[in-house]
Amino acid sequence: MARVLITTVPFGDKNDLPIRQLEANGIEYLINPLGRKLKEDELAGMVSDVEVLIAGTEPITAKVMANAPRLKLISRVGIGLDSVDLLAAEQRGIKVSYTPDAPAPAVAELTIGLMFSLMRSIHIANARMHQGEWQRYFGRRLADLTIGIVGAGRIGGRVLRQLAALGAGRLLVNDINPAACGLDDIATIEWVEKDVIYGASDIVSLHVPLTVQTKNMVRREDLRQMKPDAIIVNTARGGIINEDDLAEVLGLGHLAGAAVDVFCEEPYQGRLASIERCLLTSHMGSMSIDCRTRMEIEATEEAIRFLTEQPLEGLVPEVEYQVQREGL
Amino acid sequence: MARVLITTVPFGDKNDLPIRQLEANGIEYLINPLGRKLKEDELAGMVSDVEVLIAGTEPITAKVMANAPRLKLISRVGIGLDSVDLLAAEQRGIKVSYTPDAPAPAVAELTIGLMFSLMRSIHIANARMHQGEWQRYFGRRLADLTIGIVGAGRIGGRVLRQLAALGAGRLLVNDINPAACGLDDIATIEWVEKDVIYGASDIVSLHVPLTVQTKNMVRREDLRQMKPDAIIVNTARGGIINEDDLAEVLGLGHLAGAAVDVFCEEPYQGRLASIERCLLTSHMGSMSIDCRTRMEIEATEEAIRFLTEQPLEGLVPEVEYQVQREGL
Repeated sequence: MARVLITTVPFGDKNDLPIRQLEANGIEYLINPLGRKLKEDELAGMVSDVEVLIAGTEPITAKVMANAPRLKLISRVGIGLDSVDLLAAEQRGIKVSYTPDAPAPAVAELTIGLMFSLMRSIHIANARMHQGEWQRYFGRRLADLTIGIVGAGRIGGRVLRQLAALGAGRLLVNDINPAACGLDDIATIEWVEKDVIYGASDIVSLHVPLTVQTKNMVRREDLRQMKPDAIIVNTARGGIINEDDLAEVLGLGHLAGAAVDVFCEEPYQGRLASIERCLLTSHMGSMSIDCRTRMEIEATEEAIRFLTEQPLEGLVPEVEYQVQREGL
Repeated sequence: MARVLITTVPFGDKNDLPIRQLEANGIEYLINPLGRKLKEDELAGMVSDVEVLIAGTEPITAKVMANAPRLKLISRVGIGLDSVDLLAAEQRGIKVSYTPDAPAPAVAELTIGLMFSLMRSIHIANARMHQGEWQRYFGRRLADLTIGIVGAGRIGGRVLRQLAALGAGRLLVNDINPAACGLDDIATIEWVEKDVIYGASDIVSLHVPLTVQTKNMVRREDLRQMKPDAIIVNTARGGIINEDDLAEVLGLGHLAGAAVDVFCEEPYQGRLASIERCLLTSHMGSMSIDCRTRMEIEATEEAIRFLTEQPLEGLVPEVEYQVQREGL
């Protein structure tokens, strides 16, 4: 009987060290047999005997926990906690850990890559070339652009540093706590309100967690406020940009393009897929071999520490509980 | 009767300053009426009265020049001189100018963008997502990779600086004249032979001019020498990688991918378009608005200087003639 349920997939795919670690400790585990992100009911049906969840982004709700009487630790592979009802976990004495630093380098590089694709219409030229069509697209260069970053934490901060190193033009930044961002050494940063970012930027990139406050943070009116030839990138969480509003605004011809890696429902099946200048990837932000491996190992080691009664190292800090408490 | 034939298209598209400059000087001009890269015969049929060519990459051969008795200046919009028979021009007293610095920033950024797309399978995920298919691809990060640059001149040197700024792993470089590259300040560069680059790199990027020596520089045996999961990028000139060999090697499952922006014959219609992991763009290296505009203005100002009997500023240096002389 598996004491550990691993819901995130793929797992141990490029590096099987986390699986070997579990086996070396004699811990029985089960990997998500559906091979895709679980829905709430599916997860609720798998947890009756589980003590530890090594979890992806599937919904770990009060209902799931009610079906998991033995559950004592949720060990998130990644940083986002929007999928975990922290308050329900707290009430039931279920501990929650995460791996907040591991995904950042990979998400930041994917973000930069998506920006370059949009800036130079690489995705459109490639699609056309594969259809036998030759058309040369004009693009723009970083040095000429104003780039606005909403959320300058672990990931947004890295994106900013890389853009600064590449000689980006103007860097506008918004964060609820600028002092905590540790970006004082980048002289070219301008701290501004979100509205200034939407109105003045050629590229807007979002790096905030999904909370009650950030859900639908970017709506129709924000998108329409952007320059007609601006682009927007979301590698944070689905729903931070309202998906319907984005499809509608792009459909009306506003914005030069958008890149979306994260969706309200994944796997994504929606209107954005019919818009050529909307660059789509499949929640691949953290999917570099090195970062994904580090996330899996850190989350697995936390599970092993718990099951072998050693002190935990990745517990989610109180501030994350506060975010959910205040949102409710 | 037009004294100036502008063969490169688009021209004056995003910024009409070069056209206004010609008109302000009362100079009659004609823009390539076919709207695409001209073939030798087409060009030969258009040049009988022309004094100055503001030229793209179409073949400006001895045959073309024989049909252009009044031609006195070829002003290339760009850096490559493979399309111009410099020795035939010299014999006929036709001067040749170019704009060697203007394209470099745009080509370097496209190169970096193509690398990121290949590293993270952005192009493949995007194509699949637009077909309604959700698959998450593993990628790699710059810090983990060995990147080999062949040709460290204006463009390759910029690519190297950007990669170093982004924290790339190992940087292997080959150039026929390392001392002239001005890269001594980048401590992490290792100067190596081309074979070392092919054998040890995760990414190979080519930044050499097309000459008799570099035509088919990368052949089947070089590609097969590369790591099975390596990628190769060509934003330099078509034919530096043998196109048939690349299609064959990719078809056999070797290499994780390739990005090709330049082709032996453009518009390109060939086998690479049927290979999904071959990322294709349409000779867009210099096509950022700022660089393209600068190239067009510089080439136009050179034409105006010639026609108003002022000293030329962009004449091709003797070394370029030597390259063609030694190649023949």
